[in-house]
Amino acid sequence: MKALVTGAYGFIGRHVARRLAETGYRVAGVGHGVWALGEWRRWGLEAWHGVDVTLDTLATYGGEPDVIIHCAGSGSVAYSMSHPRQDFERSVLTTLAVLEYQRLYVPAARLVVPSSAGVYGLAETLPIRVDAPRNPVSPYGTNKVIVEDMARSYARHFSLNVAAVRLFSIYGIGLRKQLLWDASLKFSRGEIDFAGTGEETRDWLHVEDAARLIGAAAQAAGRHCPVFNGGTGVATSNRTVLEILARALRPGLLPRFSGQARPGDPQHYQADIASTRDLAWSPSRDLPTEVAAYAEWYARGAE
Amino acid sequence: MKALVTGAYGFIGRHVARRLAETGYRVAGVGHGVWALGEWRRWGLEAWHGVDVTLDTLATYGGEPDVIIHCAGSGSVAYSMSHPRQDFERSVLTTLAVLEYQRLYVPAARLVVPSSAGVYGLAETLPIRVDAPRNPVSPYGTNKVIVEDMARSYARHFSLNVAAVRLFSIYGIGLRKQLLWDASLKFSRGEIDFAGTGEETRDWLHVEDAARLIGAAAQAAGRHCPVFNGGTGVATSNRTVLEILARALRPGLLPRFSGQARPGDPQHYQADIASTRDLAWSPSRDLPTEVAAYAEWYARGAE
Repeated sequence: MKALVTGAYGFIGRHVARRLAETGYRVAGVGHGVWALGEWRRWGLEAWHGVDVTLDTLATYGGEPDVIIHCAGSGSVAYSMSHPRQDFERSVLTTLAVLEYQRLYVPAARLVVPSSAGVYGLAETLPIRVDAPRNPVSPYGTNKVIVEDMARSYARHFSLNVAAVRLFSIYGIGLRKQLLWDASLKFSRGEIDFAGTGEETRDWLHVEDAARLIGAAAQAAGRHCPVFNGGTGVATSNRTVLEILARALRPGLLPRFSGQARPGDPQHYQADIASTRDLAWSPSRDLPTEVAAYAEWYARGAE
Repeated sequence: MKALVTGAYGFIGRHVARRLAETGYRVAGVGHGVWALGEWRRWGLEAWHGVDVTLDTLATYGGEPDVIIHCAGSGSVAYSMSHPRQDFERSVLTTLAVLEYQRLYVPAARLVVPSSAGVYGLAETLPIRVDAPRNPVSPYGTNKVIVEDMARSYARHFSLNVAAVRLFSIYGIGLRKQLLWDASLKFSRGEIDFAGTGEETRDWLHVEDAARLIGAAAQAAGRHCPVFNGGTGVATSNRTVLEILARALRPGLLPRFSGQARPGDPQHYQADIASTRDLAWSPSRDLPTEVAAYAEWYARGAE
């Protein structure tokens, strides 16, 4: 069995590649990124092609996969505000290329399109069910809505097997951006001030749990394009997460919050993961343990 | 005051251009199409640029408009099934170009994005309110949903004045496609057989009423991106429309229907036009009169 991972250099993409390799796939990767010598082999990739994700490059390098995981795409709300066209191109146009590749070249393949909890925006009810209204509050979130709609349209109208996974807060050793990274930088400098109230909650899913979920979703892909929430079902406040991190990095340090909610920043995310029950998947990683491991990795030099 | 119409060669685009010219705008047009000598001037255009609709061509030829009407785009469900990528490019990528043009060059302009009743798909309740669920049943309909979502996102996040009009069945002299055209061809050959039951209903809006509505929507454009249904509120069965047409073209001829509903073809469309009340607009054309005029135009040679 063969698999193709787009964006395989990325944090989620590389974990997906490794997971697929562990479960018996021969995995090819395409996308941007410059690996250290031979590093991509250590992430389970049998082949790596450092190219744009287009119909042409997929047709050339795709390798007739049984499974396609489309991890290429944009991952930053702030970038989508400053560069809306580029965010659209990274998220939406690469998805169009993958769907066209599947339609024209490998119509029997199973495709998973990672989406984002950002499609929900300011959720009215917690935990958030997959059939909750989608009200994105950024171009990034809108582009993920568009990605989902395209995936569903292609699945339905061209009889393709597709699934979508809305990822919540993915974390783990190796992630060099977002809250844990930024906070590690701050704590290591003795800084303790953070925006927000600290009572904002997020649903943290370890990247290896996410990779297993994405692999399981591929098996459930179908013409009805099932959608899964990629979370644990547990909401954790930013204060709690940052206290764990501070304790591990600099005992005695405590985060301090401005108390001002950031406009446009959703206050609470918590996934309803009922729809994942059919997948024989459940999250396995313990947040405090993994955040402490992250702190240790950071303290060792984040290599 | 200056206006820019994309897709100004098209059936709706040229009527929009003429309407804007009549109400005092100096109108520039961009898009595809080959006019007869000087013909574009007769449609109210002061300038015409036969180019792709891209950020570059808009920046070059847009002419600092106060109003932009984005009529360029795909208009065929069947084409979207055979050419989904091209349909996406015509509808979605041209809209991205227009929104980027507005954001970067003319942020004070008012933009109207024509959408389609196709976003509703198989409507559950008639008449269809603008807040009804969007459940498109073709790639064409999905791409119009995407166009609306992009328009709303840009309006909200970049403080642009945008409105959307969901056009129902637009018709009028000069339209050389869709039901009236196809049926005129058939009747003129003495053919009377049609697919469907004849009891399917559509909400027919005359193209000049549509052009007035689009002009009025431009004045209502805002950061909340209001959406209007472009119909009359009246549902008319295909049988009724075709009987009027047959009577005018070939007295004595009556359409005959297969009796089989076409799968994927929505049975009933009827617009709820309550949201247009604030626009000081109402449809003025009488369907039987205008269908008879269409038949007369067709019989004269459709010039």
